[in-house]
Formats: sequence, C-alpha cells, structure tokens
Amino acid sequence: MAEKLYLGLDIGGTAIKAGICDGEGRLLHAVEGPTEGGEGAERILQNAARCARRCVEESQYGWDRIAAVGAGVPGFLDAVRGIVKFSPNLPLAGFPLRDRLAEALGKPVAVGNDANAAALGEAWSGAGRGVASCVLYTLGTGVGGGIVVNGQLIEGFTGMGGELGHMKVVPDLEAIQCGCGQKGCLETVSSATGIVRMARGAVERGDRTSLALVENLTAKDVFDAAKAGDEAARRIIERAALYLGKSMALVAVIVNPELFIIGGGLSQAGEFLIEQVREAFRKCALERAQEGVGIVAAALGNNAGVVGAAGLARRLAS
Amino acid sequence: MAEKLYLGLDIGGTAIKAGICDGEGRLLHAVEGPTEGGEGAERILQNAARCARRCVEESQYGWDRIAAVGAGVPGFLDAVRGIVKFSPNLPLAGFPLRDRLAEALGKPVAVGNDANAAALGEAWSGAGRGVASCVLYTLGTGVGGGIVVNGQLIEGFTGMGGELGHMKVVPDLEAIQCGCGQKGCLETVSSATGIVRMARGAVERGDRTSLALVENLTAKDVFDAAKAGDEAARRIIERAALYLGKSMALVAVIVNPELFIIGGGLSQAGEFLIEQVREAFRKCALERAQEGVGIVAAALGNNAGVVGAAGLARRLAS
Repeated sequence: MAEKLYLGLDIGGTAIKAGICDGEGRLLHAVEGPTEGGEGAERILQNAARCARRCVEESQYGWDRIAAVGAGVPGFLDAVRGIVKFSPNLPLAGFPLRDRLAEALGKPVAVGNDANAAALGEAWSGAGRGVASCVLYTLGTGVGGGIVVNGQLIEGFTGMGGELGHMKVVPDLEAIQCGCGQKGCLETVSSATGIVRMARGAVERGDRTSLALVENLTAKDVFDAAKAGDEAARRIIERAALYLGKSMALVAVIVNPELFIIGGGLSQAGEFLIEQVREAFRKCALERAQEGVGIVAAALGNNAGVVGAAGLARRLAS
Repeated sequence: MAEKLYLGLDIGGTAIKAGICDGEGRLLHAVEGPTEGGEGAERILQNAARCARRCVEESQYGWDRIAAVGAGVPGFLDAVRGIVKFSPNLPLAGFPLRDRLAEALGKPVAVGNDANAAALGEAWSGAGRGVASCVLYTLGTGVGGGIVVNGQLIEGFTGMGGELGHMKVVPDLEAIQCGCGQKGCLETVSSATGIVRMARGAVERGDRTSLALVENLTAKDVFDAAKAGDEAARRIIERAALYLGKSMALVAVIVNPELFIIGGGLSQAGEFLIEQVREAFRKCALERAQEGVGIVAAALGNNAGVVGAAGLARRLAS
C-alpha cells in the first residue's frame, strides 16, 4: 500500500496555503489561494476547500492517498468540538470549521490554532526534528507561540497553551498596555509592533538616531540601523532580546524544553537577534534549566503552518 | 487474573514510605521506615528495599501481584538512565537507584523527582482526578511543583520541568537571593522559609505585630496571627499569595492547565491562603486563560508522593 499522505491548510488573514506532506513531514506540493475573509465564513470555507482540491489535482498524488486534512487558523478554537471561538482577523467566530471542512472534502479533519500548528511543523520536520521537546516563539506583528512535548502539542484547557506573547515580563514601571487588556506583556516589547513603538518613542524623545530620518518606520529599519551601529536602535533590539530571554528563563523552569525556536518575520534578523536572546537567557535562567538547551532560528519559514496543519491531520489518522 | 498492583516508595530526608496502589490510584496499604541517609547510599537502598518488602508482607497481597515499583526522590534525576544526579538532602548523587532497586526487589523500577511524583499522585487519584491537566504547587520549606498533562508528567529535558519555586517573579527592587543562586525566585517569598523571613524582617523593623512576642517563629505562627487580625502578618501572607497568583498567571499562558493544586505544609492554612491566591490569580491572569480554571487544596496530603511513585510504576507496567 502506498504511504499515507496528509493535507495541511494554513488559513491566514489574506491567503490560504494548502500543502501535502508525507509521514515524515516533508512538504511534497503546495499551492496558495485567497482567503477573502471580508466575504464571510462560507466564502472562507469554499476557498479553503477549493485550495485543498487544487493542491491535490496539481500534484502527482490522488485524493485517495490523503488520509486526513488539518487546518490551522489564527485565533482560539474549541479543539474538541472543532469550532472557532474567536479569530482576530477572520469572521469565523462560532463557525464549525472542522465538520464543515470534513463535509466539503470527504476526509477526517483536525483544526488548531495557527501558532500551535507552526510549532508542531517545526517539531516534526523543522528545527525541532528529533528533539524531545521544543518551544516555538513566532515574532511578527504580535508574539505567538507553541509548545511540543514528546510530539504532543500543549494546547491547554481553553486553548491558551503556548500564548507566550502574553507572559507578563515587563516590570510595572516600564509596562505599557497590551491589546489583550493586560500591561507588561512580552509582545508589547518583543514584536515588530513593540520595536516600532520603541523606535518612534526614541525619535520623539529626540534621541540621536538615524531612525529620525526614516519615513514609515518598520522593525526591519530598526534592525538595519542597529546592525549599522546606531546606538538608540541597538538598545531597542537589546531590550526586545532581553525580555525574550527572560520569558524563556521562566519557560525553562516550567516546561524545561530541549530547544527554543525563533520564527516569524523578525527571525529574518537571524543570528544578530538570536545571539542577543541567547545572552539574555544565559544570564536569566537557572543553570540546570539551561544545560544543553539550544536557541535557534526556525527552519521551515512560511511553510511551518502548512506542515504543522498536516501534522494535525497525521495525529487523527495514525 | 487478579488486578495488577503497583508499589510506590517515597524516599524522604528522614523517612521512607512504601505503599501499594491499585490501578485507580487507591492506596491499599502503606508502611514507613527510616531513611538513615547519613549512613550512605547503600544503606538508603537497603532501607528502601526493606520497607517495600515489609509493606507487601504486612498487606493481604502477595509479591506476585506487584507489577512494578516506583520511587520518588528529592533532587534531580536522569530519568532515562535511572540515576540520581543531585539530591539536596541525601548522599545519592551518581547512584544508579533504578537498577539497584530493580536488582534488590526483582521488579521493574521507575524513578522520579518527589515533587513530580506528588503531582502525578494528585492527578491520578487526588484533587486532579478526572481533570485533563493540572499543576501542583508544593509549599513547604521551599516551593516545589509538578505538571501533568493528559496523564503525562512534564519532566523536562534536564528534569527541571515544574520547578515552579524558581520562577523569577519578584521585581528586582524587592528581590532577595535564593538558595539556587538567582534573585527573586518565587520560593524566596511563598515558602515557609520566605514567610518566616518576612515575619522576622517585620519584627526587626519594629512593625507593630503580635509576632514580636513569639519565640522560634514558624510559618504557622504567621498564618495564625494573620487569621487573628494582625495587620503585619496579614500583609506577609497577602504577599506570599500575590506572587503565587502571579506565577500561576504565567503558567496559565504557557501550559494553561485546568486546575492548580496547592499542597505541602503551608496548604494546611486551607481556604484562608487559597482564597487570596485565587484573588491574585484573577487579577493577574489573562481572562481567557483563567476561564473555568480552578485553584484547590491537595487531597492526598502526605500520601501524594507514595501514590505518585506507584503511578510512576504504573506507567512502566501498562
């Protein structure tokens, strides 16, 4: 019998990616289509199903080879009932995504949070391959995360497992309000949004910095300036790295993973960022909890979500 | 065939407890003997084996009913090789406890950290029975912990999973040195030692408190004074509860357990302490991560360790 294959769907704010993986998490074929979230939940469903079918049709594999389908979605899910509880960017609240996708595609379907799916992808066939436990930080507009221990996602009682961006790690005196309503969350500092906010603050304060000349500041501008030796930019990146390291020191005495993986847009800064995070972690973490623990860049890039979604499918069908 | 039974050994600083559990985690029979740790590792081994044999002999069950043996030990273990790496109170560093116990008793043996074993015990047949995921805080001389998700302990890469006492949660300005070498660890505030230290500080500062009249202050004295309305004592307990709640707010966005369980000596303060911890958790935790999450007292008391050790054995034999 031919090896079972798994189809992953990464349903994002603007695009849907569909991909076929083998049992080792190798991405064999992938296609992309639009989400059209503004057109409502039914349109998202249609587009996801269309993207999934097209992926298989354009590949060299038949539908009968697909054992199950997995879908990763931004937001909170009721994984047991397969219903989206809340999605910040898509009109999917209350939508029974799992059952409707299963009906549309005629396959068993698993659904999960997109950051958790990405962690599962990295653990399965990315930077965490062969590692017993790993924690993914996704540094983008916000800070997402996912935790995999012995191949199992720690999704949590209400789906809040691995919500690392909402660890309160910034001291009260320096803490600012987070979108979640709390103050001092990691993502107020260590996300692209946080870095841009700190850079604007430096410019407004009149700090001597080349960033004052940049229009429409982005996190990449701040990284570029820091790499070029701009002192104010350097301090901002150092601060983003410091709180990442502090949060990892906490995770290290709770989950004590073998590996921390840094993904998302900011991870494109590469070793420049990661070396500073390692330094902060070394200073802040209990010695025994950092012994042999690595901090590395994600390996799957934008494919982590679709591979992990296929990983969700594999859990169903194996 | 008769139901399989499991023998647990809780090897403590002064006493060893042995107990027989059934497959539901019910403690059927238990005995205690001395550890005699001062006499070296071989003596500890002999005493543990003797205690185990005596437990079975004095029970109504035969050795043939015991499917496997588990042992919980204070300290850090190499769970894969079954070797004690470090124990704060017992001369067991480097001792191959698993293999030597298996040789002495003629049964398969599993070993684990005592706080993790206690968490497994509470999850199996104590306060966490029937709950998908729970986190135990053991409040005694220090603060220990253990995390159980879907019946599995999160032991961690180097055995540091659930070392909740070493979460740095106290802000730098108020932080004092912990025995681990770090500053600001939870256990500097929320352990018996921490509470007594804060009480001594209040007396030395000349705060108006009934504690000034107490010789050889204990944490129980501080709880009693707080319950009786002593303002200084009340503030100390409030602070211990606050940092417990803050640490739980962090655990809630990492592991997002269904239940927090408070055990150890300090849990004898009961609802007086736990209600304050709930209050702090409610204030500090992200709303979605506290939905439906409980904070309750441990149910197995001093038997959590021996029941959990039997639970370690069950993992081997099932």
